[in-house]
This record gives sequence, structure tokens and C-alpha cells, in this order.
Amino acid sequence: MNFGSDTTAPAHPLVLKAMARVNTGIEASYGADAVMVRLRETIGRAFETEDFDFWITASGTASNALALSCFCPPTGAILCHQEAHIERDERGAPEFFSGGGKLRLLPGYGAKIDPQAFLEAVRTNSPDFVHETPLHVLSLTNLTECGLAYRPEEISVYAEQAKAAGLVVHVDGARFANALVGTGAMPSALSWKAGVDVLTLGLTKTGAAGCEIIILFGEARAKFAELKVRAKRSGHMPPKMRFLAAQAEAMLTDSLWIRLAGQANLKARRLAEGFEARGYKLAYPREGNEVFVMLPPDVSERLKRAGAVFYAWPGGSSRFVCSWASSDEEADALLAAL
Amino acid sequence: MNFGSDTTAPAHPLVLKAMARVNTGIEASYGADAVMVRLRETIGRAFETEDFDFWITASGTASNALALSCFCPPTGAILCHQEAHIERDERGAPEFFSGGGKLRLLPGYGAKIDPQAFLEAVRTNSPDFVHETPLHVLSLTNLTECGLAYRPEEISVYAEQAKAAGLVVHVDGARFANALVGTGAMPSALSWKAGVDVLTLGLTKTGAAGCEIIILFGEARAKFAELKVRAKRSGHMPPKMRFLAAQAEAMLTDSLWIRLAGQANLKARRLAEGFEARGYKLAYPREGNEVFVMLPPDVSERLKRAGAVFYAWPGGSSRFVCSWASSDEEADALLAAL
Amino acid sequence: MNFGSDTTAPAHPLVLKAMARVNTGIEASYGADAVMVRLRETIGRAFETEDFDFWITASGTASNALALSCFCPPTGAILCHQEAHIERDERGAPEFFSGGGKLRLLPGYGAKIDPQAFLEAVRTNSPDFVHETPLHVLSLTNLTECGLAYRPEEISVYAEQAKAAGLVVHVDGARFANALVGTGAMPSALSWKAGVDVLTLGLTKTGAAGCEIIILFGEARAKFAELKVRAKRSGHMPPKMRFLAAQAEAMLTDSLWIRLAGQANLKARRLAEGFEARGYKLAYPREGNEVFVMLPPDVSERLKRAGAVFYAWPGGSSRFVCSWASSDEEADALLAAL
Amino acid sequence: MNFGSDTTAPAHPLVLKAMARVNTGIEASYGADAVMVRLRETIGRAFETEDFDFWITASGTASNALALSCFCPPTGAILCHQEAHIERDERGAPEFFSGGGKLRLLPGYGAKIDPQAFLEAVRTNSPDFVHETPLHVLSLTNLTECGLAYRPEEISVYAEQAKAAGLVVHVDGARFANALVGTGAMPSALSWKAGVDVLTLGLTKTGAAGCEIIILFGEARAKFAELKVRAKRSGHMPPKMRFLAAQAEAMLTDSLWIRLAGQANLKARRLAEGFEARGYKLAYPREGNEVFVMLPPDVSERLKRAGAVFYAWPGGSSRFVCSWASSDEEADALLAAL
Repeated sequence: MNFGSDTTAPAHPLVLKAMARVNTGIEASYGADAVMVRLRETIGRAFETEDFDFWITASGTASNALALSCFCPPTGAILCHQEAHIERDERGAPEFFSGGGKLRLLPGYGAKIDPQAFLEAVRTNSPDFVHETPLHVLSLTNLTECGLAYRPEEISVYAEQAKAAGLVVHVDGARFANALVGTGAMPSALSWKAGVDVLTLGLTKTGAAGCEIIILFGEARAKFAELKVRAKRSGHMPPKMRFLAAQAEAMLTDSLWIRLAGQANLKARRLAEGFEARGYKLAYPREGNEVFVMLPPDVSERLKRAGAVFYAWPGGSSRFVCSWASSDEEADALLAAL
Repeated sequence: MNFGSDTTAPAHPLVLKAMARVNTGIEASYGADAVMVRLRETIGRAFETEDFDFWITASGTASNALALSCFCPPTGAILCHQEAHIERDERGAPEFFSGGGKLRLLPGYGAKIDPQAFLEAVRTNSPDFVHETPLHVLSLTNLTECGLAYRPEEISVYAEQAKAAGLVVHVDGARFANALVGTGAMPSALSWKAGVDVLTLGLTKTGAAGCEIIILFGEARAKFAELKVRAKRSGHMPPKMRFLAAQAEAMLTDSLWIRLAGQANLKARRLAEGFEARGYKLAYPREGNEVFVMLPPDVSERLKRAGAVFYAWPGGSSRFVCSWASSDEEADALLAAL
Repeated sequence: MNFGSDTTAPAHPLVLKAMARVNTGIEASYGADAVMVRLRETIGRAFETEDFDFWITASGTASNALALSCFCPPTGAILCHQEAHIERDERGAPEFFSGGGKLRLLPGYGAKIDPQAFLEAVRTNSPDFVHETPLHVLSLTNLTECGLAYRPEEISVYAEQAKAAGLVVHVDGARFANALVGTGAMPSALSWKAGVDVLTLGLTKTGAAGCEIIILFGEARAKFAELKVRAKRSGHMPPKMRFLAAQAEAMLTDSLWIRLAGQANLKARRLAEGFEARGYKLAYPREGNEVFVMLPPDVSERLKRAGAVFYAWPGGSSRFVCSWASSDEEADALLAAL
Repeated sequence: MNFGSDTTAPAHPLVLKAMARVNTGIEASYGADAVMVRLRETIGRAFETEDFDFWITASGTASNALALSCFCPPTGAILCHQEAHIERDERGAPEFFSGGGKLRLLPGYGAKIDPQAFLEAVRTNSPDFVHETPLHVLSLTNLTECGLAYRPEEISVYAEQAKAAGLVVHVDGARFANALVGTGAMPSALSWKAGVDVLTLGLTKTGAAGCEIIILFGEARAKFAELKVRAKRSGHMPPKMRFLAAQAEAMLTDSLWIRLAGQANLKARRLAEGFEARGYKLAYPREGNEVFVMLPPDVSERLKRAGAVFYAWPGGSSRFVCSWASSDEEADALLAAL
């Protein structure tokens, strides 16, 4: 009954098999290997475009910070939600990679950026006023930190306004596959077609061992050489890149990522419905693989004594995260323990 | 006949098997897993001490820079050889991680720091003179960039003088196992017993998929909390650390690292002896898994046409690197092509 | 009728005279001059202590950032008001000087930090949780950005709680003298006696040409050597420091700083009372040399047409700042133009 | 008999008079004042061009680092002499301002960059090789740290080769006026006409209180907005800029800078000729206001006992620096004490 985080799950066996399969003979190092070449096609098919470049790291923090640092100078700012992972949980990585850039924080229900606050921030942005730090990037998180999914049409609206103000649009997609399943959208619809310039496509929580792809779409590709330089400089260009590429290939082949995210979302739905059926109110609609439920202290205590693992969340709810490896039995055992 | 670099070799099968073996069930993330706990004992046995702390990354550049940044403030300098990997091949990673620290470069035969130049640098160091950047760390590379091995007694001399001047002693051990085999020294003798405070123990070139351990010995352990913070902040604390720990465990178990390095060294010896037997002079003694040989241009050209891969090196030699996966047949084919 | 900012005022003639007076003969450079030695005594008398160290720069942004960077590591955070000058008007200087530290923002009336929000921030601070950025410094601004003055007993409360949580207490005193006059407190009472560890004592707005003293009190003196190193490294250790020291000496001699701040506060009071007498509501009580008044758009427009200079402020008020050089005639002309 | 440094001299009285003269009434702050406007014309006349932008700081370290940081990214390198002030005496300021850029050091007689070493560095520069840090800027110092002057035709050769390799050309002109007098060249000839893109024009050593102009010529002007942002962010945009501008104006008016540098050079010539007449060999030709002479230890000791102030220099010589305030009497007294 461990619903603490999808980061504690094992990797899917196909991922490790893929790593073993590429472990043959000499391969060019630092990303010039054949697996990376093949992977390019795989990503292109998944996202229905050839107008992209990509890099891979083993860490979501690294991929977010690298992506952001290509578009936010040391003297600039990134606009994000006040509960965003890049603000709360990455120990200042964006500030480190950007050389001292700032995060500008916005409020909003369910860790979605409030549209009015966003418009106001963009409206009052003064890129030419030397004393203030101007905005360079809008960073959305999909799923949000409260498990909500931005839909393509929502992202389009933010992206259009952001671009009109000269901002680049980044999506932290640590749970992007869960958002795809939750919204029913295609990868292209939830990324470049909606105006996303750079996507951190997390696959680790979805089922990889450690694999987070940074994808630059369209004009953002102009930063690809810089992205690689920054990856090298920060130790995110390990010699045997084939083992990162193999993970990505395995996940994107035959829609494994979608299937695994679908499993996780299903378990979360089972949990969410179970909570509601027993009279417990959800703090936010369940749209991906996370359930935030309002539990009275004694119930929460009872669950913990029964061996359930989950976390208290800001705002008073309890967070339960399902992974590809969560089982119906675990979910039912938890609900039974209520 | 690929002798370009030991970074192009595959991982040893036992390494991938170990990764698959730990891929079962839920594990605490970010390094709090059971594999990391077991690994601590394994490292302790290999280095004959319990007075250490450690972290793992998948990149030598990252491990070097993280290690150095714990001991060199933004306002300080690291003393190293002018051909050191941290100066030449890591795209300013030490400067990035330290927040703008400097590398102070010393000359010396075979990429070993010249003892006189070292003494002079230490002697003229002025930590209290506000205009100059004072030394905080001595970084040695073992094997050096020219394939030479520092012996325990050599390191002791540098370390003693460094410490008398208040410097911390770091070893970049990207090919540490090759140095162990080359010198016949025990891991402890070539590290903490010789006065090394912090070791970047590379296992990737030796045979892992991507695994470089940072080991803090003795008083250097005071920086362990900071090391983890810096690892997190730079994206080198991926959630599923068990896959890094499993690689290290596999390599250090039953002396696999020593056996693989021994194989690589043997192939290099075969090459070196073959070159010399055919009248080609070595640029430096062969002490590890690298051979630097003076080849006339036409011979070099002939080898390349025959399919051999190797690199021209500063100073006019040609560098041939053997890995655990190099075969006698490859070596003999190369020699035959001479 | 220029009430735009006290930064636009000239320097007091005594300040320039003092600079001319020290312009005789050879003086040791980089702060080792005789004027700096004398100044130490002058500061000591003004603040009734010998337990301090100090440095001077010509810029408040520099002095704030230098002070903060000695106490907030790259991996840490500074707690301040969301409207603080260090957040809004210094173009990311604290982030730059600290190497990527963060500012954590708190709300509060009149740009004073809300006591409850402060307690909550301190209570939830987790210095040992590697993913979050922990607090290292509390920075108060006195006068605040809305012209309010913290009183000694208020600062004591914040300082006590901050220190209990391991935070260092900084005061941005760009208008410290105005706060002294406004509260009637002694310099010691509004600084070290109230628990302030490091004070940025601004004298430029008060009447200097460019002179902002960083004062480290008590245990904070342990950072004095680092402060000088950081000053040097950031270009804030110009060779002829005597010209900075002479300004400070002139200002602190015979209470010139207090007298000039008193003049400025009096003019602001004249303005404030004039506004209120004419039925215009102040947005905040007038406690220093700034007046924030709610003016209908047509009145604001009329004033501007009449030649008055002042700025619209967040929240809808208009800000009028008086300097030592503001005259009763200017104030009366402005009020007449209402 | 103080020949320690031209930084210990007072400011010329006309400089302080100019500061007092601009101390009247309200002036726009942060560089938008009328003195800055006038100064633009003054600089234009002095350098015979209108194709430039400029900023002023009170510190040569700041002006050098700001200038360099506009042209060298965190991932790039600056080529300079191994004895350059930016390497030896600025406590890592270029690394700090650039966010971790590197200095690449070249040898050469008299602190002039060796032409062959320069060509080799430029020839082996690999901007597209991700592992190495590529060159972005060439920084020359004029006068050099050994008191030699680059002539216009020398600078032209370096600049042409640098530009062909894509490098920007910077001159650290802390003693630029002394170089002008020493070479007899016009300011334009020793800067933009010779291919210099950005000049740090030091006036403090020449006779100002604290005034170092950064001048961007021609295409380098594209970085002017960034330069101001970096100045603000580093605390080098103090509010009352008029006092910096007034110094520059005084120095550049009626060729005061040239006359003061001429005086200093003359005193140095007197010293140099005196040394040589007494049989002491100069370590380098005297071309500006600095004399480097080989003194036997007993002579050096005798001078010090007689009250002379000067410094031992790397290479065994003794350095004597003359300023605008040095007198013939002092020079003669020193020579008499020999």
C-alpha cells in the first residue's frame, strides 16, 4: 500500500531489457551513438513532427533546469506557479543553471496558473526597465502539482499570450504521459501544436529507470547547440548515452509510456472513486495518477497504522500517487483500511 | 580495432544484470534505498575503512565538479596539471559548480604535476591577500592524461605538502582501477592512506554503464551534507538511485573492477610491447590501459586506412586506449597493420 | 516641485568639502587609508559600540547584495517582503552576488512583513530537507517601501524569532536615518540592540554623493574577511577609498545625517498634513520622508501639468519623496496646485 | 619617495572642483543626468567618433569585468597574458561577472602576449567541440603589467587575427593615457582605429578620484543595453551618476588626462635615466609611468631604509610607479639615496 510517489516504483522490465539489448560492442560516446539516431525517429513519430531537437538526462530537475537556462538569462525571470516543482522541490536548480535568474510566482487553483494573474504579470512586464527583472519564460507543469491536467486549448491560450509578450513556453512534463491519458490528447496536441516551445518529457515516473527528454520544437531549436554545451558543462552528457537512449526508445515504442500511464491513471481512478464512494471529498478532481483527498486526522492515522504510505499536502489534503506498478489489490486494501 | 576511448566500450554484462536484479518492488527514492545501504559496506570493504561518505553520479565531469565545489569557494582556486581533464575536457564544469572558482595550472612531464612547480605554487600562495585568488584544492589525476600512474608514495608527498598549506587533496580517478593494477597498490594505499581527502572513483571507463563514485574520507566527510545538496541542485540526485548503486555494487563485488582494469591494462601492454618490438618509441611509459606511441605520419595513415581508430595527442604521439572489451585479436590485428 | 525620489537630490555641500579635504598627498589604497581608520571611530560613536566591522560602497544595491551574500549560500534563501527593494528594484543583484540564492517573499501591510506569515515561514523551514531551499537570512527594510518605520521593539520580535530559527538578521537601511528620526530611536536601538546582525546604512539618499556603509555587528564580524573578498571580486574595492570614507565621515559628524533626514521628514510632514487638510487620504501613515496619498486621476493629472514630479505606486496611491534639499516653497507650491 | 602605485595619489584638484560644480539642484538619477549627456560629446571629441556607447564605474576591476562579461558567455574563455591584471589582481572578477567563464593564459616578454603563442591559441580554437571551452575575447593590457606600451600597428595585427577567428577585442586601459603619451598615438589610433571593440579607459590612476569608462565601439554597441543591465545588477549604477560623469568630463577636458599622464611619464623617465646613469639595468624599456629596474638586494634595502616605497616584481626587478603627483624632488631624492 505504498502511494508515496511514483518515483519509488521499479522500472518496467522492457526498459531494462532495452538497455541490455544495446549493450553490444563499441558505440560512439557522448550522444553520437546509433541508438540516439534511432531514437530521433521514434520521438518524431510520437510527436508527429520532424521539426525538433532533443537531449536526455536521468533527472527531471536537470532536464527542467537545462531547458530553462537556455531561454532565461541570468538577468531574467521565469514565470511559474507558486507551487511549481521548479520552485518548491528542485533546490534552486533553475537559479543555479541560469546563473542567478529569478522565478516569478503566480497563484491559482490546483497549481494551475490563474489566468488573470498571468495576464497582469505579462501586462506589467517591463523588459526595458533596467531595475526590474523581466520575464523570459512561462513554465507550465502538466500534470500540475495538484494532479490537474492542462488541456490543449488551455495551453494554447497561455502560449499565445506569452508569445505576444516575447516569452518562451516551457512545459514541465514530469507526468506528461498521465496528462495525455487524462486529457485524451495526442502528444503533439499537448505540446508544439499548442504553442509549447520546449518540453521536459519525464519518463522516469512513468516507468523508466532514469530518463527525461528535453525536446526543443520549431524556433527553439536555435538553442540546441547551447543546450548540449550546458549539458556537458553540468555533467549531463555521460559517455555511454546509449543507455539513456535505450530507455527512451523502449518507453516510446508501441506506446509503452501511454499504456503505463494509463495503468497508473486507472489505479488512481479506482482510489478516487473508492474515496468518494466512502464519503471522502477530493481536494481536486482526479485527472491523472494522483489523488488528493480530504481525510480526517483519525482516518489518516488509521491508514498509516495499517501500513499505507502517502503524504500530507499543503492545503490539508492527503496525496496518493499511483504508478504503473500499483495494483488493484493495493488500492482495494487501502480502501478497505478506511 | 577501435582504440579511440574506453568510453565507447559496452558495460560489462554483470553490471546490467545487477541493475535488473534490483528492479523489484518499491524502493525509497533519492538515495535512501537498500542498495545504497549495502553499497556502503561494499565500498568500506574495498577501501578498508568505515570513515567515509559517498555519492554517485553517472558522469565523471559531474563527480569531479561536485567534489571540487565542496572544497573550493567561488573566490578560490584549484591547483591542477595544465592538461588535466578538469581543465581541458569538462567545458568549465569546475567553474560552473564552484560559482566562478579558478583553475591554476602547473606543467609537468606526462601530465604529472612537476614537484618543483607545485612547491613554488604552494609557497607563493597568499590566502590573506585580497586581490589574488588563493589555492584551496590540489587535484591530481590518476592515471594521468598521458597514462602514467601516481604511486602511493608520490601522492603522499604531494598530499603532505598540500595539507601543510591548508589545501584539500582531490584525485580524479576516472581510470583509478587501471592505476591500482598498474601500481599494484591497494585502493586504500592509493587514496586515504596517502592523504587523499576526496576521490572521484570512475567506474564507467572500467566497465559500468554510467557510475562515478565520489568518496569523502575522514575530515572531508564534514562536507557530505553539502555534497548532497549540491548533487540535488545540479540534477545529480535522480529518483531511482538504486540503478546507480547497483552498478557500483556489481563492479566492486568479487573485484570485478580490478579484473576488468587488469584485462584492459594487459591489452595495452600487448600493444605497447608490440609497438616497441617493431621499433616504434613510446612517448610515455605504459603504466595503465593507454599507450602513447610516436608514429610517423605514413604509418598513422596506414593504420587508419586499415580501420584502426585512435587519436592524435598533443606532443605528436598517437593515443591508443584499451578497454575491458578489447581483445587480443584486435591488438594483434592492429600490430599486423603496422 | 520634484518629489520623484531622494536619489535625484544633490549631495550636501559638507560632503563634497570633506572629499576635497582628504584630497592631500599619498594615502594607502583599497581601504587601508587614514580616513577609514578615523571613520571607524566615528561609526563606533554613532552606534555606541566597538563590536563591529564595516565596508563602504557607492551603491545601495551593491551594499545590500554584498551583505546578503556573506550570509546566504547559493543553496539558501533570504526571507523578505514581496515589495522589498532587493526583490523589486535591484535586478537580481542578491541572486547574482549569492551565486543563485533565492528570495522568499512574504506579504504584509505597508511593505512590513506580516508577523503571522513570518512565523509560518520560519516554522515550516526545513534546513535538512535536501529538495527545498532553506532560509538563511531575514531581511527587513527600514523605512519600508511604503514609507513606514519599524520600531526597535518590533525589530526585536522579528530578530528573536529569526535567530531562534538560525537566521541572520539584515536591515536594508537605505532610509535608515529617516527611520531614526521617525521613530526617535537611537542608531544602536534600531540596529544591534534590537538584534540586527548586518545593516546596510544608506547615506546617499540622506545627502551623500554615493556612500552606503555595510556594518557587521557582533558575531556577524566573523564574515568581515569574506565581505572584503566579495567587495574586491565585485569591483567594490576601488583604489581611492578615502573619497568614500570622507563622505561617511562628513555625514556622521555632528549628526549631519540626522539633521538632513530630519529636514526631509519635516517637508514630508508638511506635504502629508497639506494633503489631509485638503481632504486627500494617505495610503499609509507618514513616518519618514515619503508620502503616499490617494489622488483622483484628474488631480494627479493637474499636478503633473503644473510641473510636479512624483510616481504612481502599486495599490493606486501616488508617492511623493522629500529630500534634504526639498524646500517649504516647493511643498507649498505643490499643495497650492492641488 | 612613494613610488608604490599610482593608486595612492590624490585626485587632481580640477576633478574635485568638477564634482562640486555639478552639485546643484535636482538631476535625473542612474545615468540619465545632463552631465552624462555632455560627457558623451566630450568622449566623442577625444576619440574622434560618434559610433560608441559608454558607461562609468569607480573601479577598474568592475569596468574590466563588466566589459568582458558582455562578450564572454559562462561557457566561453577570454584570452589574455598570464600576468594580466584580470588574471592576477582582480580576485576572479571576470569569472564572477561572466558566470564562470575561463581565462586562457598566454606567455610573452614584458607582459605582452607572444604573437606565436597567440596564433597557436587561435588556430587550435574549436568553437564547436562541446568538451572544450572556446575563445570569445582577446584582452590586451595597455600599458602592460611590465610598463610596456602596445603601439597602434601592433594592436591592429592582434585585432585582425582575433576577429578573423570570431573574437572580440578588449583593451584593459588602466594606464591608457600613459600609453598614449608613451606611443604618441591618438586615442582613436590606439582604440577603434586599431580594431579595439571595447576599451576600459582608466582615469583613476591618471588623476581622477574613481572613474573608469567602459567604451563600446562600433558593432560592440549592440551590447550596450546588456552592459547597463549588468552594471545595475552588480551595483555599478549608483543613483547620483553625475559625480562619476563630472570626473570623466574634467579629465577629458583640455586634455587634462594627457597632461597628467605626461607628467607621470616624465617623472618615470627621470627615474629610469637616473637608474641607468648609475649603472642599474632596466628589466624592461620604460615606455610609460612605470620603471622596472634590477637592483641588488643591498641597494634595495638601502632605498627602503631611506624611506622609499616600491615593490619587488616577479622576475627579480623592482617596480617604481610615478603618478601625476610625483615630483622631481622625490625622484631626485630616490636617486640620491642609491
